[in-house]
Amino acid sequence: MARKVKVGIIGAGRIGKLHAENIINHIKGAEIKIIADVFAEQVRKWAGKVGITNVTDDYKKVLEDPEIEAILICSSTDTHADILIEAAKAGKHIFCEKPIDLSISRVKTALKAVEDAKVKLQVGFNRRFDHNFKSVRDAVREGKIGQPHIIKITSRDPAPPPIDYVKISGGIFKDMAIHDFDMARFLSGSEVYEVYATGAVLIDKAIGEVGDIDTALIMLRFENGAIGIIDNSRKAVYGYDQRVEVFGSGGCVLNMNDTPTTVMISDDKCVTSDKPKYFFLERYKESYIDEIKEFIKAVTLNTETPVVGDDGLKSLIIAEAAIKSYEQNRPVRIDEITG
Amino acid sequence: MARKVKVGIIGAGRIGKLHAENIINHIKGAEIKIIADVFAEQVRKWAGKVGITNVTDDYKKVLEDPEIEAILICSSTDTHADILIEAAKAGKHIFCEKPIDLSISRVKTALKAVEDAKVKLQVGFNRRFDHNFKSVRDAVREGKIGQPHIIKITSRDPAPPPIDYVKISGGIFKDMAIHDFDMARFLSGSEVYEVYATGAVLIDKAIGEVGDIDTALIMLRFENGAIGIIDNSRKAVYGYDQRVEVFGSGGCVLNMNDTPTTVMISDDKCVTSDKPKYFFLERYKESYIDEIKEFIKAVTLNTETPVVGDDGLKSLIIAEAAIKSYEQNRPVRIDEITG
Amino acid sequence: MARKVKVGIIGAGRIGKLHAENIINHIKGAEIKIIADVFAEQVRKWAGKVGITNVTDDYKKVLEDPEIEAILICSSTDTHADILIEAAKAGKHIFCEKPIDLSISRVKTALKAVEDAKVKLQVGFNRRFDHNFKSVRDAVREGKIGQPHIIKITSRDPAPPPIDYVKISGGIFKDMAIHDFDMARFLSGSEVYEVYATGAVLIDKAIGEVGDIDTALIMLRFENGAIGIIDNSRKAVYGYDQRVEVFGSGGCVLNMNDTPTTVMISDDKCVTSDKPKYFFLERYKESYIDEIKEFIKAVTLNTETPVVGDDGLKSLIIAEAAIKSYEQNRPVRIDEITG
Amino acid sequence: MARKVKVGIIGAGRIGKLHAENIINHIKGAEIKIIADVFAEQVRKWAGKVGITNVTDDYKKVLEDPEIEAILICSSTDTHADILIEAAKAGKHIFCEKPIDLSISRVKTALKAVEDAKVKLQVGFNRRFDHNFKSVRDAVREGKIGQPHIIKITSRDPAPPPIDYVKISGGIFKDMAIHDFDMARFLSGSEVYEVYATGAVLIDKAIGEVGDIDTALIMLRFENGAIGIIDNSRKAVYGYDQRVEVFGSGGCVLNMNDTPTTVMISDDKCVTSDKPKYFFLERYKESYIDEIKEFIKAVTLNTETPVVGDDGLKSLIIAEAAIKSYEQNRPVRIDEITG
Repeated sequence: MARKVKVGIIGAGRIGKLHAENIINHIKGAEIKIIADVFAEQVRKWAGKVGITNVTDDYKKVLEDPEIEAILICSSTDTHADILIEAAKAGKHIFCEKPIDLSISRVKTALKAVEDAKVKLQVGFNRRFDHNFKSVRDAVREGKIGQPHIIKITSRDPAPPPIDYVKISGGIFKDMAIHDFDMARFLSGSEVYEVYATGAVLIDKAIGEVGDIDTALIMLRFENGAIGIIDNSRKAVYGYDQRVEVFGSGGCVLNMNDTPTTVMISDDKCVTSDKPKYFFLERYKESYIDEIKEFIKAVTLNTETPVVGDDGLKSLIIAEAAIKSYEQNRPVRIDEITG
Repeated sequence: MARKVKVGIIGAGRIGKLHAENIINHIKGAEIKIIADVFAEQVRKWAGKVGITNVTDDYKKVLEDPEIEAILICSSTDTHADILIEAAKAGKHIFCEKPIDLSISRVKTALKAVEDAKVKLQVGFNRRFDHNFKSVRDAVREGKIGQPHIIKITSRDPAPPPIDYVKISGGIFKDMAIHDFDMARFLSGSEVYEVYATGAVLIDKAIGEVGDIDTALIMLRFENGAIGIIDNSRKAVYGYDQRVEVFGSGGCVLNMNDTPTTVMISDDKCVTSDKPKYFFLERYKESYIDEIKEFIKAVTLNTETPVVGDDGLKSLIIAEAAIKSYEQNRPVRIDEITG
Repeated sequence: MARKVKVGIIGAGRIGKLHAENIINHIKGAEIKIIADVFAEQVRKWAGKVGITNVTDDYKKVLEDPEIEAILICSSTDTHADILIEAAKAGKHIFCEKPIDLSISRVKTALKAVEDAKVKLQVGFNRRFDHNFKSVRDAVREGKIGQPHIIKITSRDPAPPPIDYVKISGGIFKDMAIHDFDMARFLSGSEVYEVYATGAVLIDKAIGEVGDIDTALIMLRFENGAIGIIDNSRKAVYGYDQRVEVFGSGGCVLNMNDTPTTVMISDDKCVTSDKPKYFFLERYKESYIDEIKEFIKAVTLNTETPVVGDDGLKSLIIAEAAIKSYEQNRPVRIDEITG
Repeated sequence: MARKVKVGIIGAGRIGKLHAENIINHIKGAEIKIIADVFAEQVRKWAGKVGITNVTDDYKKVLEDPEIEAILICSSTDTHADILIEAAKAGKHIFCEKPIDLSISRVKTALKAVEDAKVKLQVGFNRRFDHNFKSVRDAVREGKIGQPHIIKITSRDPAPPPIDYVKISGGIFKDMAIHDFDMARFLSGSEVYEVYATGAVLIDKAIGEVGDIDTALIMLRFENGAIGIIDNSRKAVYGYDQRVEVFGSGGCVLNMNDTPTTVMISDDKCVTSDKPKYFFLERYKESYIDEIKEFIKAVTLNTETPVVGDDGLKSLIIAEAAIKSYEQNRPVRIDEITG
């Protein structure tokens, strides 16, 4: 991998900066040529520190640069689809943060553009690259637990996002559970055909007031016969709770949460040990590096990306089914959902 | 507790014998005066060994004995209700194995008899006395995890029962999940008002051929706002998987499976440790002793039994709701179920 | 095992009562015919409750009874050797609590009597029957960790015994570590040839004032090349800490402490779980049953007992070597110790 | 920390390269100006890749550069002392890999030079910066386990080094256990005053043939009354076994090994989980970054380094005492060791 893929980053918020620093520090096969952000002035200071000299407030500059082979779309969700379409037309390979868009039809339009342009697209489902979940997936794939029967996913955030974010987030199913829908597909190796979702506002009334819920249970039925359950909460006071379990005809594989240390203290009252790592930046640190590594590798070797556009679409469709199910309090078949 | 409660046991199958031996070996406050079983001859050999001399094939002899203060109903499920009613009329305190009956109306009739006779009744939900689940319940009750939001129960048997038993079992919801419905009420400290159940035949087609399923997911909504999920399988190849979890506003409490030893072996391939204890006789050994201890204590001290008739009824109603939900593939409210 | 071995118990203190109740409740192949204790009056009430009618203050009555096949010596340590010799002469099979005696020469005399009388003797090293340690031993014996290189034993009591007991206990090496010396031989499958012991008074000055220590480290060299380390403390505030580890050419096997439950509570500060079981009565409950089961089996089947007199002697010799090593602050070879 | 400390690295073997890449990728407060290695030609290719343009085969060039504020000595052990003395004279702050030298007198001479030059020196005991051990140390320091009584350190490598390295390594006590001697001082917060060491050749006869051992137990007595034990093996087939435990008057703190994942697979035979991380590069990855961060911070803020020259000297003296103890098979007091 002697040659370096020249990369442009569009959007330098928290996740854009994270990807930028990961490329600089960990990915030998890529270099960042330019970064675009609407608040370019505010980004420049950070960019200088990490050694990125080329900062623009116009993402089109990134797309126009013929040297740029690949771009990372890390801007706000509502801009993803448009940029994606333009980037595809410009012949750039694309890594796009999830979700591609909150609207199925817009996602489909975007994916069509990608297909037509024959560029690569990878969707930012970073959890597939997590050491634990990858290991669970490998165990399933290698048949260590036989045929999957029950998939369980626990996914709880340490604290809810600001209400202003909740409002535009698309709701718990599209914003939070969407990662778990992808995980369910990833772990089961099968497609969901029916969803039943329930939930409640148990943490913060303000979340309910903007029409969302903060606690959810989502049941999934898979084409291979397996059944699945996801539980979500916006607030686990003990930190980021990210556990999965696949039970099958030959056994069961599960993971525990990662912790900062393995230290245990015994005293006259009890044994105490560490809470889980606080949130996604800590828990999924390595996965963010690995997903970009894989993207760059796919670009370099001209292979398929490990998380394609269709993965983004399918999870969004499951989310829509979950919303409909929650609203109508009935199981909803995936084929009821149309863009 | 100097005086000994004289006890009669009706039904000396596996569970009747277990209770008998537990009373003999572990419960100082009770003694077995008589044991009845339709196969009295076959029971006598065992009875002699454990020191029970009085064996009859007519359970009415037990009810007629004025010295008998309390009886244990351990006969086949279809006989529970009738014996219970007769025992109540005879003024005996009653410990009855679950379920009281597979029919809600018959259970109601039986409970009416108990109420009229003012005798005590304890239903055999032994898992409430399990060291782990009791500890989880205590943590919830003491507010260690705040207000409960999500209840999770994993309950998987090591192997399915014989098909002949499956046929008369009342199905997975009444036979297997009923314990978990009681556990859900016990852990949440609240009542279920809606159920959604799904399931499949993934283990043994023969189970499907007799109209039952072997794998199930059951979602529960509680009056206190919490939501719950139960997962059942008739066959976990690694043994009896019995875990619960209560997640709440202040934290999360869960248990791991009990194992025969705490030994870990590290070699050049991996670290290996014990599977869970094999089945209920191993895992719930102590709980069977403790439930009878508590029953005898309630009789001796004239206090309420820790698991009353209504607990049996409520779990059965949840089971009926689950069956209806599964059959109609829709959430079913508890108040839809009438005896 | 239809016939029942008639057993006499000499000494009805805590451990004598424990064995008696275990035989009554758990060992079908034996029955207690008589129990002797110098404080017979005080013992009678308990004996009546558990169903032993024959209580004497004269242990010779036990030895004189021709129906008695086997006896359990559970009296105070200073009486063990004399009773053992008399019992051997009377042709009784003997289970003797550890230690046989605090003096090597007296132990040798007692073992000679046993040999001459051709009776069976089992020494009360109950920990060999612990589910965890047995499993560790099995792993070693089956070659799962290859050739043993390092043996580690952690053995810490929850609280020191009363000073009056400490005075006559023979000191930490003979009273407490002696179990660990036996465990070291058991786990390694080899004999100790050199000992180096160090220690300190860190818990209670009173222990030092009567010439003992309360904290110890004892290094062992084994004939098979392995090296071992035992750490002892008279006071672990978190309960009974009983862990072993065998490291070898092919891996490592170790156990964790048993706990009352497997429950874990996560809150905003940490994850808490149970302390170890409090002390030997809780932790070694099953092992006390199993050692007597094995003794009765050896008597019934006329096979060798699983812990012979020589095991008692060898551990005592190691303890003497440890004492000498501690006093002279130098490694002491086992062959330096003579009765 | 706006200004960047200009750093020179002397020695670009495995550990020198590791430090270099860590500074480049993780330490914003430092930049590498030059790197020296006797095999400069071979180093250049790697240096180019990571962005270091200035490579020399003469370490004096590093010392002569007036812009260089701090150097890292990562060359072979026999060159440490000389370079350290020269660097001190040149007024450079020094990070020196352990050991400073295998000879106590040479270490003393080097430390004198550091003292005279009033430069900072940090010794490369990276394990003090490990997340687990730091957490254990914090628990001890904060009094969570009361007064320390027993310190236990398990330190086993996955595989022995090449025999050619063993020959010049100074032996297991100076090469391997020296890290554990430092850890013992770090965890106990006290100084060792007496050592007793034993050991054997159990893994590879070739190690014995060059006069070394491959398995060791080392007992330590501390000035604060605590006692300690270190166990070392050159070959743990399951990976790098790095565990510590501090037992005290108020409890016990210990760590488990880090593992690649927290995944557990249950099947019909057992539960399997991951082996420990393979070796020091995996297990101590973060600690290597953190030790240099702390060094650079001390240089920048003009504070004391967290591991001073005396720490290097004290561990070497304990190692000499261990060697003497092993050779003479007797406990050796630290004050018997003179340079």
